[in-house]
Amino acid sequence: MTEVEKDVQITHSSDNIKEESAYANQVPYKASEAEKPLDIINVFDLELEAEKVIPKGGYGYISSGAGDLWTIKQNIDSFNHKLIVPRVLKNIEHPNQHTSIFGCDLATPIIMAPVAAHGLANAAAEPATAKAVAESGSIMTISSYANKPFKEISEAGAGAPQWFQFYMSKDDGINRDILDETKANGVKAIVLTADATVGGNREADKRNGFVFPLGMPIVQAYQSGVGHSMDSVYGSSKQVLSPKDVEFIASYSGLPVFVKGVQSAEDALISLASGAGGIWVTNHGGRQLDGGPAAFDSLQSVAEAVDKKVPVVFDSGVRRGQHVFKALASGADLVAIGRPAIYGLALGGSQGVKSVFDHFKHELEIVMQLAGTKTVEDIKNTVLLDNPRS
Amino acid sequence: MTEVEKDVQITHSSDNIKEESAYANQVPYKASEAEKPLDIINVFDLELEAEKVIPKGGYGYISSGAGDLWTIKQNIDSFNHKLIVPRVLKNIEHPNQHTSIFGCDLATPIIMAPVAAHGLANAAAEPATAKAVAESGSIMTISSYANKPFKEISEAGAGAPQWFQFYMSKDDGINRDILDETKANGVKAIVLTADATVGGNREADKRNGFVFPLGMPIVQAYQSGVGHSMDSVYGSSKQVLSPKDVEFIASYSGLPVFVKGVQSAEDALISLASGAGGIWVTNHGGRQLDGGPAAFDSLQSVAEAVDKKVPVVFDSGVRRGQHVFKALASGADLVAIGRPAIYGLALGGSQGVKSVFDHFKHELEIVMQLAGTKTVEDIKNTVLLDNPRS
Amino acid sequence: MTEVEKDVQITHSSDNIKEESAYANQVPYKASEAEKPLDIINVFDLELEAEKVIPKGGYGYISSGAGDLWTIKQNIDSFNHKLIVPRVLKNIEHPNQHTSIFGCDLATPIIMAPVAAHGLANAAAEPATAKAVAESGSIMTISSYANKPFKEISEAGAGAPQWFQFYMSKDDGINRDILDETKANGVKAIVLTADATVGGNREADKRNGFVFPLGMPIVQAYQSGVGHSMDSVYGSSKQVLSPKDVEFIASYSGLPVFVKGVQSAEDALISLASGAGGIWVTNHGGRQLDGGPAAFDSLQSVAEAVDKKVPVVFDSGVRRGQHVFKALASGADLVAIGRPAIYGLALGGSQGVKSVFDHFKHELEIVMQLAGTKTVEDIKNTVLLDNPRS
Amino acid sequence: MTEVEKDVQITHSSDNIKEESAYANQVPYKASEAEKPLDIINVFDLELEAEKVIPKGGYGYISSGAGDLWTIKQNIDSFNHKLIVPRVLKNIEHPNQHTSIFGCDLATPIIMAPVAAHGLANAAAEPATAKAVAESGSIMTISSYANKPFKEISEAGAGAPQWFQFYMSKDDGINRDILDETKANGVKAIVLTADATVGGNREADKRNGFVFPLGMPIVQAYQSGVGHSMDSVYGSSKQVLSPKDVEFIASYSGLPVFVKGVQSAEDALISLASGAGGIWVTNHGGRQLDGGPAAFDSLQSVAEAVDKKVPVVFDSGVRRGQHVFKALASGADLVAIGRPAIYGLALGGSQGVKSVFDHFKHELEIVMQLAGTKTVEDIKNTVLLDNPRS
Repeated sequence: MTEVEKDVQITHSSDNIKEESAYANQVPYKASEAEKPLDIINVFDLELEAEKVIPKGGYGYISSGAGDLWTIKQNIDSFNHKLIVPRVLKNIEHPNQHTSIFGCDLATPIIMAPVAAHGLANAAAEPATAKAVAESGSIMTISSYANKPFKEISEAGAGAPQWFQFYMSKDDGINRDILDETKANGVKAIVLTADATVGGNREADKRNGFVFPLGMPIVQAYQSGVGHSMDSVYGSSKQVLSPKDVEFIASYSGLPVFVKGVQSAEDALISLASGAGGIWVTNHGGRQLDGGPAAFDSLQSVAEAVDKKVPVVFDSGVRRGQHVFKALASGADLVAIGRPAIYGLALGGSQGVKSVFDHFKHELEIVMQLAGTKTVEDIKNTVLLDNPRS
Repeated sequence: MTEVEKDVQITHSSDNIKEESAYANQVPYKASEAEKPLDIINVFDLELEAEKVIPKGGYGYISSGAGDLWTIKQNIDSFNHKLIVPRVLKNIEHPNQHTSIFGCDLATPIIMAPVAAHGLANAAAEPATAKAVAESGSIMTISSYANKPFKEISEAGAGAPQWFQFYMSKDDGINRDILDETKANGVKAIVLTADATVGGNREADKRNGFVFPLGMPIVQAYQSGVGHSMDSVYGSSKQVLSPKDVEFIASYSGLPVFVKGVQSAEDALISLASGAGGIWVTNHGGRQLDGGPAAFDSLQSVAEAVDKKVPVVFDSGVRRGQHVFKALASGADLVAIGRPAIYGLALGGSQGVKSVFDHFKHELEIVMQLAGTKTVEDIKNTVLLDNPRS
Repeated sequence: MTEVEKDVQITHSSDNIKEESAYANQVPYKASEAEKPLDIINVFDLELEAEKVIPKGGYGYISSGAGDLWTIKQNIDSFNHKLIVPRVLKNIEHPNQHTSIFGCDLATPIIMAPVAAHGLANAAAEPATAKAVAESGSIMTISSYANKPFKEISEAGAGAPQWFQFYMSKDDGINRDILDETKANGVKAIVLTADATVGGNREADKRNGFVFPLGMPIVQAYQSGVGHSMDSVYGSSKQVLSPKDVEFIASYSGLPVFVKGVQSAEDALISLASGAGGIWVTNHGGRQLDGGPAAFDSLQSVAEAVDKKVPVVFDSGVRRGQHVFKALASGADLVAIGRPAIYGLALGGSQGVKSVFDHFKHELEIVMQLAGTKTVEDIKNTVLLDNPRS
Repeated sequence: MTEVEKDVQITHSSDNIKEESAYANQVPYKASEAEKPLDIINVFDLELEAEKVIPKGGYGYISSGAGDLWTIKQNIDSFNHKLIVPRVLKNIEHPNQHTSIFGCDLATPIIMAPVAAHGLANAAAEPATAKAVAESGSIMTISSYANKPFKEISEAGAGAPQWFQFYMSKDDGINRDILDETKANGVKAIVLTADATVGGNREADKRNGFVFPLGMPIVQAYQSGVGHSMDSVYGSSKQVLSPKDVEFIASYSGLPVFVKGVQSAEDALISLASGAGGIWVTNHGGRQLDGGPAAFDSLQSVAEAVDKKVPVVFDSGVRRGQHVFKALASGADLVAIGRPAIYGLALGGSQGVKSVFDHFKHELEIVMQLAGTKTVEDIKNTVLLDNPRS
């Protein structure tokens, strides 16, 4: 390495020291302990309410995105790039949003996205979320960076399928141990997050000097979590991901592996070739690469490349029943929500999360009726109208 | 039905109880009793003035729309998607906006849209509106959810054609009775609202806890109205609509039946095939499905599918004489106004509604002159300029 | 005429009485008497300054436009629909904006648009403007609705060409008298305003109850001006214009006749066929038909239809030297300014108008240099870049 | 020259007198003397902070642009016209941004743009900047209008390549002297600014009555700088540039000559034909011709015309690592930053400039990783996604 090359390496060798010190100044972290059903008008309101109960650093971490926040804004706005044409005289009432995946029946195509550190929102953390998701007849995706042990989350959500979102260790022994544990707890699929091989440029976290205040027991073999910034946490996990990692996880676990973070046909095909059992279209909720396309704008071309060979899951920017509808009509099989559920968790604990799922289901039901669709299959067969203007 | 399927049913079994109680807390409802002509600059001003005199719940119900209010905003903005090219040296003055439909002469192509519950705006309610519409030489469309008996409205509006907007009962006997009554009062057409088989996601009503404070005598055989929310009212009417309903009404009444809520060529053709005597292009004033196209953006393709086989009526977002002009030039035969007339009713009773019609006629007259069109037929033959930008 | 037809006639029989009374309440009108050079940064500033010195009714009349003010806003914004590509190494300095029309040399392609009632802005009125325009080496277009006699204006502007903007009387005898007077004073062309056969929907004037406070001596044979609204003034002039009127003026006067208000190739061809000696592309500064295209967006297609057979003049929305450049590069031979000059008149009298012309010339000179154009002909041969986005 | 032609000449014969007097009223100019590293979240913040420490006239000169500031705003917004598609499973970590030009190794493709008068931002002026740029392993482009002697700047930045931005004198003897001096100090390339043959319409400077408070020693043989406006300074330099000037500089200096200000394929080809050794795509940071295209929107077509025959440098609107990435992916070989570095200079002196370069490198590194690019060559081979909407 020449002098010049050394210069370009951005080193963070002293980061852990600084972070632990910043952490010392902000503990104890006082998360909400609310547990009650919520009367939800819309989830934008919910975000405003949640901001009042989540400590500032935690709220910044949950709510914000990368850089200029352009892509995160596009995520929501882009749903207006396609329009649902209302249909009449379709002989429908009480549309049915039941669906299934990998042989599991689901009450709704709306599932729980993997989100790190639910403990930032509510002391009851992931188990409360998992319980609500199970009561909603949906899928809980458990994050590697959960604040509670896998077994505790899994048991709280018994009765409904659970998936595991995997941030790999640089040590394959640790990876095997983590996969063993999750398999022992009955997970039905592994979700490999491939779009976060470095921390996104999250300015809110920098402004708040945010470090994680709570432990991450699932990955404790390679990462304590407590007192570390997101950059540090990502830095401790495996950053050099390749098709071989997909092959490794699929072959070792015997489970379907979603590659999460796909926004191009090329990456969909590479993922499929490496043995992916599912494709997850997302831009990480606008938290990683600003200046890239809205996730929804990428969905259709990815789904066309996948060509129904494996299931497609979509997330990023989903705030409305109509967004769920549009994602399904653009090629998604399931649609995941993240932040809205976490806001529900902050404001109402497990019952709050359940209220959020009920709210989304209710909005979706209205849209299905007005769009003349009786089933999820009908939604998938719906042709949206292209909006050339906005 | 599995447990999972049951879960997805959004039930409102206790809704009526809650609603009656909310109602008890907000009666008596004090509507305006104004009766005077209005000096109108534009109908946006009128809305601001009306907000001051209509009780909050009533104003929220009248003015607002579904979800993010994106589509309702698009309804108005979309008129700028097509542009009127001014024409010169066309040898015109005092253009004539006379037209006719089903053998009835009209002083203007601007008619009254069906709007529920005029009593929210003015104690004089629908009879006052009907009187003004008749004096304006136009058509009154009487809503099923009117606050006054059909006969009273009809008599107040004698001398001009009246149409009846039908929300069907789940009981065909009741439907026949209602049709018998309206025919006995001389209606010239039935307007079947097909885009409201479930209540739209109207957040203003939820925020206000709005329930209807006044009775709905026309449909009292299946729905009292008083103390019920819009969702409840829609829930009491027939929600499973199909082409057979069009056939039934047409054959039982012997009147032309408009299918209202058509925004696609497909639905236009299905409606025609089921015996529709007219097509009504609307998105219910942006009150039903948010995330769908502006009504005006749908008009031309629907009109082309209808191909002059039956009349096309347009509403949704009409706030200007130029909007009327553009709708006529895009395939409408008549253009209906709703909210602006209701605001006129609130501020000036029957004379207020008359002032609103005069104002629209005056704006249309100016536009006709500057666009070089002497008659409604000239407007229909005008080619608008496509605006690719906004 | 049937009852219904009568109803649609919007009559203003009592308008004059109301107007005279409104007038009585607002006289005397105190216009500025300023006479000084202005230090101009841009003409948007100038408008803000002018608002402080022009009485409210006068300012509303001068500054505002029709309806929602959408088209008036588009007039300015539309210049960004085409972009000037900077050019380098073109071996230029001190570009020359000299040009000529009908054999008259001009120091600049920027001329004075016809504007009614300069007396609203400055007591010195049209003679002050004419003097400054002459000193600027440009053309003064005198409005029929000027507040000073033709001869007085004409003499003040001696030494530079003058054109006459004609609002015809309904009486051809009067028309001949007016043309005789203007010819006697040496006008070089007649500008027939064809886009104002009815008053535009100018809401600011309605809000202000604006009536003209000053006389209109040029047309006093058919219109006093004093105490009348714009609608009334237009109503007194001839509203039924046709190609025959162009023929009449051209043949009676022997002068080139511009048809003003052309925004379509069709109208350009009709005008040429009727003997027009020039085409004036404008939408009357956004004061007549709201919801129509920006004038600049119409320019290129009109110019292509005219195909250099006669000169093309452009106005509407010109606020920058770059706007002048873009209009010339899109087919205009001359570019007229209106409101900016009137604001200069209000703030600085004749010297203020001169300052405005100097300012525009200076901005144009900079643009010419940076665009690599040495002459007006170079500008006309410049290909602008289409901006598909805004 | 006719009377009319004389009139169109905008003369500034008394400008120098006025300017010196304005200058007398504003001296002494108190620039920052800060010297410290900066903790940078983003460079938009930096601008806000810098405004607080740079005297008003200096800040206006540095920050602002031409006319309506439309093009300057487009410069930044236009980066969203093309989108970076995130890539996954690309087997990458710690991407390497090393590159080279004319045989010089660089730690990064991000270089220092020529900016006049660094002394406005910090008393340490250009030597401080040059030192930081050298420490960053990048290229310093020294402006003709620097506030320090060439030798002083050059020595401060020893160890890294330096280029010289040339505003020519009208006297070729002086030009030879200046080239001799810069060559003697080891410059590797000459950058001929060709888009500033007249001062842009910079309204902030006019509002502030800004004149340069500090000397310009490099060009002192033809221009003192002190007490002069930008217009005056440009007026003293050679304004009639042509391909012969490129030929002269190239042949006299024997160095590669960049033509700076190219936004069209035509000008690229003309420059190449005249012997240019590099093409610099820029619109002078939006400071010269308002109403022209964003520089980034021009880049791809220019780069295609250049067709790798010579290097392409890009500047204008670069505020983010993703902007650097997008410019490289659109045909640039190097990307220059201007204002952000000057703000760093104001706030932190040499260390501040270094912090700005570190910050840009860090943002670029994140983007490279998330876009799946390991090297600058990988970036150049990346296909961006066209964004048709904004």
